[in-house]
Amino acid sequence: MAPSSEAIRTTVENYIRSVAKGTADDVLALYAPGATVEDPVGTEPRTTEEALREFYGVIEPLTQTGELLTLKIAASNAAFLFRLTTHLGEQNLVMEVVDVMTFDDDAKITSMKAYWSQDDMVTVPAS
Amino acid sequence: MAPSSEAIRTTVENYIRSVAKGTADDVLALYAPGATVEDPVGTEPRTTEEALREFYGVIEPLTQTGELLTLKIAASNAAFLFRLTTHLGEQNLVMEVVDVMTFDDDAKITSMKAYWSQDDMVTVPAS
Repeated sequence: MAPSSEAIRTTVENYIRSVAKGTADDVLALYAPGATVEDPVGTEPRTTEEALREFYGVIEPLTQTGELLTLKIAASNAAFLFRLTTHLGEQNLVMEVVDVMTFDDDAKITSMKAYWSQDDMVTVPAS
Repeated sequence: MAPSSEAIRTTVENYIRSVAKGTADDVLALYAPGATVEDPVGTEPRTTEEALREFYGVIEPLTQTGELLTLKIAASNAAFLFRLTTHLGEQNLVMEVVDVMTFDDDAKITSMKAYWSQDDMVTVPAS
């Protein structure tokens, strides 16, 4: 049975929170076995748990804030715009990205594709 | 050679304008031969020019306004949030959708997938 919209929304919210504030393990727990990550779209997809762990491990030590800006759900799929702010002392690196995800029946992520380029990253003074 | 970000942005802007204000022919002119449309995601993709023409023909007679809210480009791909307002006399039907598109070297659309559900349509009084 396809996951409910509620279940998909919960996974997306947990994902953004885990990417910003959690560990690589927290993020990995939201993925289904065999899941793939293409971030940004156009680069080689990461297709193993080890590759996903390495990818999310890079941002684990950063101090970040995540915000879900818009979420659209269609069947077992979601597309959402979110803002990830990385706090770097006197500066913040602000990045806005559209992620597209597919989900299994348990609302675990089976694939993630991230749409962004360098233009979507800006550095602003920390307020 | 991959299309430039500028060329992709121009196609996306023309697409939204053509969907809102143009004819089915105007929209079809932005698609590459053999392009596919899945709208909303989870429904059967439309894979022939005839099917695309039928799809866009339905909205051709409507009085609409389109606005691009956010555009993210990654290689030959785009994901964008837009608002389509259909003017129905004393009421407006407002729909916000995330579209994901792929493009050929000439920045013609080779595929479109639209992420939305009934929750993303609201009716508001015309101001």
